[in-house]
Amino acid sequence: MAARLLLLALSCASAWQMGTAPMGVRRPAASAPAPATMGLRPANIAIVGGGTVGGGIVEILSRKAAFVRGQLNTDITISKVCVRDASKPRDFQLPEGCTITDEIESILSDDSVDTVVEVMGGTTLAKDVILRSLKAGKNVVTANKALIAQDLTLIQKTLDEVNAGREDKVQFRFEAAVCGGIPIIRTLQSDFLGDDVTQISGIINGCTNFILSNMAGGGLTYADALKEASALGYAEADPTLDVGGFDARSKLRILMKLAFGIDVDEDEIPCRGITEVTSTDFEYAKLLVGTVKLLGVAKLDKGGKKISAFVSPCFVPTQNTLSSISGATNAVQVSSTSLQQSVFVGQGAGRYPTANSCVSDILAICQGQTSVPFPKEASNLQFVNSFESAFYIRIRFRDRVGITFDLGQIFSDCGVSIYSMLQNPIKDRDDAMFVVTTDPVDVTNVKTACVKLEATDWCIGEIFYMPVL
Amino acid sequence: MAARLLLLALSCASAWQMGTAPMGVRRPAASAPAPATMGLRPANIAIVGGGTVGGGIVEILSRKAAFVRGQLNTDITISKVCVRDASKPRDFQLPEGCTITDEIESILSDDSVDTVVEVMGGTTLAKDVILRSLKAGKNVVTANKALIAQDLTLIQKTLDEVNAGREDKVQFRFEAAVCGGIPIIRTLQSDFLGDDVTQISGIINGCTNFILSNMAGGGLTYADALKEASALGYAEADPTLDVGGFDARSKLRILMKLAFGIDVDEDEIPCRGITEVTSTDFEYAKLLVGTVKLLGVAKLDKGGKKISAFVSPCFVPTQNTLSSISGATNAVQVSSTSLQQSVFVGQGAGRYPTANSCVSDILAICQGQTSVPFPKEASNLQFVNSFESAFYIRIRFRDRVGITFDLGQIFSDCGVSIYSMLQNPIKDRDDAMFVVTTDPVDVTNVKTACVKLEATDWCIGEIFYMPVL
Repeated sequence: MAARLLLLALSCASAWQMGTAPMGVRRPAASAPAPATMGLRPANIAIVGGGTVGGGIVEILSRKAAFVRGQLNTDITISKVCVRDASKPRDFQLPEGCTITDEIESILSDDSVDTVVEVMGGTTLAKDVILRSLKAGKNVVTANKALIAQDLTLIQKTLDEVNAGREDKVQFRFEAAVCGGIPIIRTLQSDFLGDDVTQISGIINGCTNFILSNMAGGGLTYADALKEASALGYAEADPTLDVGGFDARSKLRILMKLAFGIDVDEDEIPCRGITEVTSTDFEYAKLLVGTVKLLGVAKLDKGGKKISAFVSPCFVPTQNTLSSISGATNAVQVSSTSLQQSVFVGQGAGRYPTANSCVSDILAICQGQTSVPFPKEASNLQFVNSFESAFYIRIRFRDRVGITFDLGQIFSDCGVSIYSMLQNPIKDRDDAMFVVTTDPVDVTNVKTACVKLEATDWCIGEIFYMPVL
Repeated sequence: MAARLLLLALSCASAWQMGTAPMGVRRPAASAPAPATMGLRPANIAIVGGGTVGGGIVEILSRKAAFVRGQLNTDITISKVCVRDASKPRDFQLPEGCTITDEIESILSDDSVDTVVEVMGGTTLAKDVILRSLKAGKNVVTANKALIAQDLTLIQKTLDEVNAGREDKVQFRFEAAVCGGIPIIRTLQSDFLGDDVTQISGIINGCTNFILSNMAGGGLTYADALKEASALGYAEADPTLDVGGFDARSKLRILMKLAFGIDVDEDEIPCRGITEVTSTDFEYAKLLVGTVKLLGVAKLDKGGKKISAFVSPCFVPTQNTLSSISGATNAVQVSSTSLQQSVFVGQGAGRYPTANSCVSDILAICQGQTSVPFPKEASNLQFVNSFESAFYIRIRFRDRVGITFDLGQIFSDCGVSIYSMLQNPIKDRDDAMFVVTTDPVDVTNVKTACVKLEATDWCIGEIFYMPVL
């Protein structure tokens, strides 16, 4: 750190104003000769969104300007930042020469801007900005998970059309869109190209992992843990997208496209949130030497022709690295033929982690790096709305004679084989609980068994089940 | 997987023979127009080394040929594989048109070969191959950790000289050189460019992690665990490089150059292996809620001007993700200003993990990706042969009056503050053991205290101490 800070001290003051890109110089390709006068590759970017992430990007690029010039031979100018209200004070300093504007047209129609960084969020105006930028031949960097999950196909199609016949391909990068600070996008785009992914399992929502960690470690109830998550800013005012598993599902869709090349409609992915997880589940999880995590999982069947996926709370055994990921941290575990098992752990959100991923994208583009956004294409892979797994099943019951017999018969009828059965000492014979774990079986069999169990006179309420990782 | 396998079935048979690069076509830059007849970027590679990794590379590239052509628009020919004994049978099938040779000159002097993949190992002939390839303007992909750790400066200098004034920079990639299947090199080269790394802590030797995991989990002695590691092929015939920590030190040197931009002589990094770790340490580690791992650690001091590093067994608390990494798996934890804490976990060695990393490098080069091998440069960062940490200190002693007094006085004199003291029930008053953990302190103070303690009449043998992560 020391040396770089020193470099900054020597030359940072003048870095930005010197960075003005010559008009008409567009995206410099890797092999394009740098202007002889400076020996630097110029790049002119505009940021759409001046909030938490946008501010972080400006800060980091300002702090790193001397390094980027000196070591990466690249001179980045931030010429414009587009915001909703240009008069509102900002918590970051604008680089010299940078204009703040509330007119997006001034960016889209500016031929000197070669890269647009979209960090405004939302799926309407942001969509327009991204598609029009691509069509105008501008590279796009975005952190917009919701938009990519919603319009992945359209974005890909637009990009293909724009790049057809182009030599210097327009670049689309979105490292920050999934798991903020974890470079999982680039990793799937480049380090698994020679490999075949067989399963992805991820803790891909920080809010729910924070809640579950506090229920596991601090013994909090779900309601109290959610309250704490809200107080610390990990949960939105309406936490449905997080606790309902929908945010994780959007990310899972993007990861599935990257890892398997399959494009699945989000709504087709079975999704269960964490609202049904109780303190009791953590007691039993401890007995089973593990914990409970909300995971997004996608996996190939053994034949490699069908893929299933779900978002659900899962029982995670202690020996799996994912069980040790606590707080708002994210982690993605990738199983594959050559690399066997890899895990990538980091911050899933926050100003600087997210901004850092955008900056990595910006630097890659400005250095002339090219990338194929979704390199894998699996036209013959079939998505199946079901999956096989071992299961954890928690059953609330009135104690009476014949329960074990009923249970054995129903499970046997439904083809569900019991692996273990656990029951804490019964305190109230009219409202007790036990937990069954099963051998690997299709979720459909478990569902059928649960319906039949729920119809007995000793079962209370709905049965809770979750996959075992 | 299904779809890709199908693609292969359709077109793989003819992939290789069609892949012959037109003579004289050198490394195709990203923006170079592909030959109009095929629309594909041609690439002609030669592999030096036909053993475990070389064979894995050939296998993967053969299996992925259709994908690489169809999705990455690149046509890779493996024109030559150079081995020591060309008549020896190989455990992989040569692609059609590929020559096996034992004459390295036939590759170095072949202008049509644009990329040389060095997987022969060793630091003499391999060095010659790499340097001469670079000088001949050929890209180099290597898995050679020992060579890079030894000749990092020379390789960098050669590359700089070769590339001075060149528009299409000769590429040097070495993803497989550190932590085989973990893309840690690329991650440090590209995802931490806008960030400032403050600490790296890694389980970067699979053999020792396998041994320590078995001592922890299986209760094996060091000798038995080493025997098992040897039987399974995790340890070399002479395991000194592994168990002595020297292999980890070579990797740490490379990681330090990438993460901090500092080039440290390997021999300057304090290095302690695992031979002194005993079953007793795992008993005490359990009491302290953690385990023992061999780590390579490099960290900046608070002022960011000094850097220290060491390889040593360390006490790792259970809540740290590194504590859950068992067997021959590797993991690198990176602490940084923006991303806070990231962990990258995967296979550290083996045919396919290592070959996969080489293939990722080959694909990146063949797609015209450029990279700066060592992007950070920290000319003002000072390496200090000392470091601050909390410590675990295990002391063997004869029980008598005054030990606690001596201990307190010596530690106090040496500026070492005791955080906790643990002692299992004493079975033999003439040969007992206790463990002290300290507050953070400079290792020099701990060393001085140990020397003084060893001089008392109750201390038996040498004291064992290790940092607490």
